[in-house]
Order: sequence, then structure tokens, then C-alpha cells
Amino acid sequence: MKNFTIIAIFGITALSLSATASAQVKPEDQIKYRKAAYSFASWNMGKIKANLDGTYNADQVKAAANAIEAVAHSGLGALFGPGTEKAVGDQKTSVKPELFKNGEEVAKLAKDFAAASTELAKAAESGDAATVKAAHGKVGGTCKACHDQFKSR
Amino acid sequence: MKNFTIIAIFGITALSLSATASAQVKPEDQIKYRKAAYSFASWNMGKIKANLDGTYNADQVKAAANAIEAVAHSGLGALFGPGTEKAVGDQKTSVKPELFKNGEEVAKLAKDFAAASTELAKAAESGDAATVKAAHGKVGGTCKACHDQFKSR
Repeated sequence: MKNFTIIAIFGITALSLSATASAQVKPEDQIKYRKAAYSFASWNMGKIKANLDGTYNADQVKAAANAIEAVAHSGLGALFGPGTEKAVGDQKTSVKPELFKNGEEVAKLAKDFAAASTELAKAAESGDAATVKAAHGKVGGTCKACHDQFKSR
Repeated sequence: MKNFTIIAIFGITALSLSATASAQVKPEDQIKYRKAAYSFASWNMGKIKANLDGTYNADQVKAAANAIEAVAHSGLGALFGPGTEKAVGDQKTSVKPELFKNGEEVAKLAKDFAAASTELAKAAESGDAATVKAAHGKVGGTCKACHDQFKSR
């Protein structure tokens, strides 16, 4: 029962995760780790943007796209467990409580992010800046879609 | 000249990065992002450990190993730029000032971490828990080697 919310929100991936590792991560650490994951992804999104706006370095874009894809496929659902709806200890959170009540919508948004990140990684592999730009925009759109609904300002 | 320290510490990867994106990341954000990167890697190291100690889920271990490899190859050297030797704004840091004076040693440690993470990703791909355990231990050793020298307690 403990992992019901996680499972409801993020489906199979979180389910398999909840059976092993996630139960051992304290709510405070879940918040810390999810903020770290998105922050790391954000840095890599910024690097790709800088490459698109400036000199295009294919290797750097590939590494950054791989990083974003790895974040999107790392099972982040396990970091939105019970007790992480609001600040715990030193860890503040800007998640809206609504996220924990809209499992299907959140699962769809997470799936969109994962799919767009894979598309971006493939685009980066191609080395074509225009393709990367389009894919980067799509990933950014999936970030925004979730923030608009479930992140407080 | 501005990026001399970064280049001296992390070599070619950082050099190519410094030419594009890194110059735009403020020192405060560099500290924030590097902490996020290592924290995200740490969560994934913990997941692999939990899989080794409990029920082994090959997909989860693969995703976690890919995440660690992506962090290790993301050009973290660019996040140790001038002005990040000590706390900036809200961002504290536990880096020792010695890191910024030992470029060759740090470059070696970063290279070891990157190589060990690739080995771990390959081990995860194989699905063999014993191989993963050995590779996971090696990655942990590269984390510790750097922390022992350059992270204050």
C-alpha cells in the first residue's frame, strides 16, 4: 500500500522500482534527488541551446542529449513518493499537491518527456543542428507542459 | 584567459565546452549544477546497490548505469570555473581549494570516473549481477578517490 501513489502516477517503471530501491530512499532525499535530476537536465538543455545559438560542437551536444535522455529514463516517479507533497526537513519543493492526484495526466507527461528525450538523443547523433533544434524545442515543450500544470512559481 | 583554470583541470572536453556554453553559466549556477550532477549520480549508484543487495532488476540497473555514465561524460569540468572555489550566493560548496591547484591529478580522477562508468554501463548491459557488482565497486572507488582528496567533510 505504501507505494500506491507512486504506482498510480508513474506506472510500470515505478512499480518495478518500488519493489526494490525506492522504499529505501527517505522522503527528504527523494525531494533532493528529484530536484538534482531536473537541475542536471536543465544544465544540459542550456548547453544544447548555447550550441545552437553559438558554435555547434557535435560531441558536446551528443553528451548533453544523452544526459537528458538518461534523466528522463531514470525512473523519476520513484522520487514522488508519499510524504514528498511538501517540504521535508531542509528540502523545499515547488511541486503542486495536484500532481499527486492526477496520476494519469502525470504519467502521460512523463512519457512525453521520455519520448522527446530519445528523439533528441537521436537528433544529436545525426549531428544535424536543425534537427537538434526541433527536437530540443520539443523536449522543452514537455518540460513546460508539466511545469505549467504541476510546478508552483 | 578566463577559462584557463577549467582547461588546465579538465583538458580537451572542458576546452571545447569553454568555447561555447560554459562562459554563460554563472559561478553560483556552476556550483548548483555540479552538486546536482553528483547528487543525481549518487541516487543512481544507490539504486544499483539496492538491486545488488535485493532483487536484481536488469532494466533498472541498465537505466541507472546509463545515468551515471551520462553524468561522468557530461563535461563536469566546466562547472569548476573561476569563482567557484568557495560559496557564492546561496550555493555552498564542499570542494577543497586544492582541487583548483592540482589540474593533472583532477583530470586523472575525472578520467578514471568516466572510464569506470562506461565499464559499469557495459556490465549492466550484460545483465550479470556479479559483473555489475565489480564494476559498481570500481565506480565507487573513483568517487571515493576524488572525495578523499578534494572534498571537505
